[in-house]
Amino acid sequence: MRSVSIIGVGQSPVGELWDRSAREIAYTAVSAAMSDAGIETADALFVGNMLSGSLLDQEHLATLVAGYCGLYGIEAAKVEAACASGAAALRFGVMAVASGFHDVVIVLGLEKMTDTVGKDTTAGLATASDAEYEALHGVSFVGLNALVMQRYMHEYDVPIDAFAGFSINAHRNGANNPYAMFQSPISLKSYVNAPVIATPINMMDSSPVCDGAAAVVLVPTERVRQFTTGHHWGSVRVLAGASANDTLAVHDRRDPLFLQAAQISAEKAYAQAGIRPQDVDFFELHDAFTIMSALSLEATGFAKRGEGWRMAHPEAIGINGELPISTMGGLKSRGHPVGATGVYQIVEAVLQLSERAGANQVRNARLGMTQNIGGSGATIITHILAA
Amino acid sequence: MRSVSIIGVGQSPVGELWDRSAREIAYTAVSAAMSDAGIETADALFVGNMLSGSLLDQEHLATLVAGYCGLYGIEAAKVEAACASGAAALRFGVMAVASGFHDVVIVLGLEKMTDTVGKDTTAGLATASDAEYEALHGVSFVGLNALVMQRYMHEYDVPIDAFAGFSINAHRNGANNPYAMFQSPISLKSYVNAPVIATPINMMDSSPVCDGAAAVVLVPTERVRQFTTGHHWGSVRVLAGASANDTLAVHDRRDPLFLQAAQISAEKAYAQAGIRPQDVDFFELHDAFTIMSALSLEATGFAKRGEGWRMAHPEAIGINGELPISTMGGLKSRGHPVGATGVYQIVEAVLQLSERAGANQVRNARLGMTQNIGGSGATIITHILAA
Repeated sequence: MRSVSIIGVGQSPVGELWDRSAREIAYTAVSAAMSDAGIETADALFVGNMLSGSLLDQEHLATLVAGYCGLYGIEAAKVEAACASGAAALRFGVMAVASGFHDVVIVLGLEKMTDTVGKDTTAGLATASDAEYEALHGVSFVGLNALVMQRYMHEYDVPIDAFAGFSINAHRNGANNPYAMFQSPISLKSYVNAPVIATPINMMDSSPVCDGAAAVVLVPTERVRQFTTGHHWGSVRVLAGASANDTLAVHDRRDPLFLQAAQISAEKAYAQAGIRPQDVDFFELHDAFTIMSALSLEATGFAKRGEGWRMAHPEAIGINGELPISTMGGLKSRGHPVGATGVYQIVEAVLQLSERAGANQVRNARLGMTQNIGGSGATIITHILAA
Repeated sequence: MRSVSIIGVGQSPVGELWDRSAREIAYTAVSAAMSDAGIETADALFVGNMLSGSLLDQEHLATLVAGYCGLYGIEAAKVEAACASGAAALRFGVMAVASGFHDVVIVLGLEKMTDTVGKDTTAGLATASDAEYEALHGVSFVGLNALVMQRYMHEYDVPIDAFAGFSINAHRNGANNPYAMFQSPISLKSYVNAPVIATPINMMDSSPVCDGAAAVVLVPTERVRQFTTGHHWGSVRVLAGASANDTLAVHDRRDPLFLQAAQISAEKAYAQAGIRPQDVDFFELHDAFTIMSALSLEATGFAKRGEGWRMAHPEAIGINGELPISTMGGLKSRGHPVGATGVYQIVEAVLQLSERAGANQVRNARLGMTQNIGGSGATIITHILAA
């Protein structure tokens, strides 16, 4: 298997981009990544996206985007795994290069969730859950996460404001990210006073509905030197990647408070990379809701069962903390354009590992981990990148 | 790169399966393929599907199906490339095995297009075209193909009934396929008298809206012997596979009467396999409309420009003809459950190459080619399989 490296990254701003259609947002990210990589064409374009069919009446998305970016005669396909679509597309990009089928692959994460005429974004997000056994009964996606959070608080006797530190950290970091949807810090007071969406999840526990696209360029590590001549910034290696599934419906899960798929995918990734959790310098986790941050930290070896919430303070997860998380704002502050999120995480990890993260630079970052979650923990994909 | 082989195939009947939900149809195909392969688990499940988001309000489909089939802790993702979704999923399955990431991969093609409450299947199919520049103006997918066919007939002075032989051949073969949606032969008279859908496309030029699922099991060729002991039927090698894109909108194409992407993907596949078109023993082409059969034959080296329609007779394309096509009924008679079609083609090619095609067996079939088309020629994927 050939080793795979990233030689270019690009992203669009995240937000309610009412003046731009999906293809234009995609072009912003793809052209930035191609320019960052110094390439003018590619062998393949794989697009992580969840909702273009439901919200935009547009399938065949990868071929549409490829053409809009001027790429013809190449391989193009869309990859969907709910909110883990971005990392799922990266997995295929890595396989395409690792196998030797392609030498230059662009992986794009793309989502347009706002300004969708006559469509219901909440109903769209519910398609990540089981349509016949969950969504049919009217439970929304935030509702499912609220049930999990409620149970967690009950089981481990955790007060609601114990989660505030995750959101405060995310916004503190997002304030320095020019691509973030929210670039203002928040306080404990604003967390506590935030309106409740689905008890106990409040507005500050929850990532926003938004639009965005992020892209990376992959090449075989053995060919990196050909591409990174002159003023090129260098490259970052994809050291490991693994995906695992669990039951789609939360009610089918043996233990709804443990992310089995996170544990499996993280352990596979650690084994591939030959590292232990404590070797990771920062962790871009899937903080779609604060409860998911706690559960992810527990399942991947950074906290004991029921104690992930105890890490919600700067000494643990801040930029200069023990394990920096959501270093560019995470899903909460940078935003969560669902199918794009997994690729934003990769882009941000690459910025950290190439010392291009600006004010949020994690010092001496050599190993970065990302984790992208689809549904309420049903598809979990972990990647480990190395400077 | 590791060579990849198919050791199991399975399919559900194709039709209006009103009594079965998508997951049940999927289970039929997956369990049949696993049983045919003699395996009890897998490392990954990739699902080619186009319309589950639009028509079933169900994304996250691969994880749903994996769980319903009892497969947990594995990699699962859905792949979408309009009507080429099935072959696109196979591409990723092959890459996963070829790269060494996985040893046993199930590739499923799945579509549920009928009995979709409150949804519009015609609008769903139009999502394969450009939503903002084609579908928005009200042109349906069959309408786009009708424009191409009209132009072809004008440009090359071809009478409408010249295409009848494609449909007659498909139905003749489908009559012997127990999984086919239509198992009755048709006559020239029934073709000529068929109601017109979009001039000049009539009901007999067009493949049906239907449900179905097909699956294959992939392993590295070097490990085939471990799996094919005892009464196992053997294996078929995936000799080559390539995908190419063209403009999504037909009106953007330099020449709407030439399938550029078919030519590119076929030539790449021939080169990978080290063969010429005349070495192919049969060809499962994408006869969603008769015009696509003609264009596909022209672009892949079997007929000259403007002369593909001349092959629409038994001596050319029948089971005992020069180049048998649609040997188990093709999209026209077996049916066209869009995201599943590409995998049905592979399953049928494997049946031919393992001498399990029954009454439709192509004699001495050693090399089979399949071609799956997304949109009106915007994504075209060619595979070559070897006995």
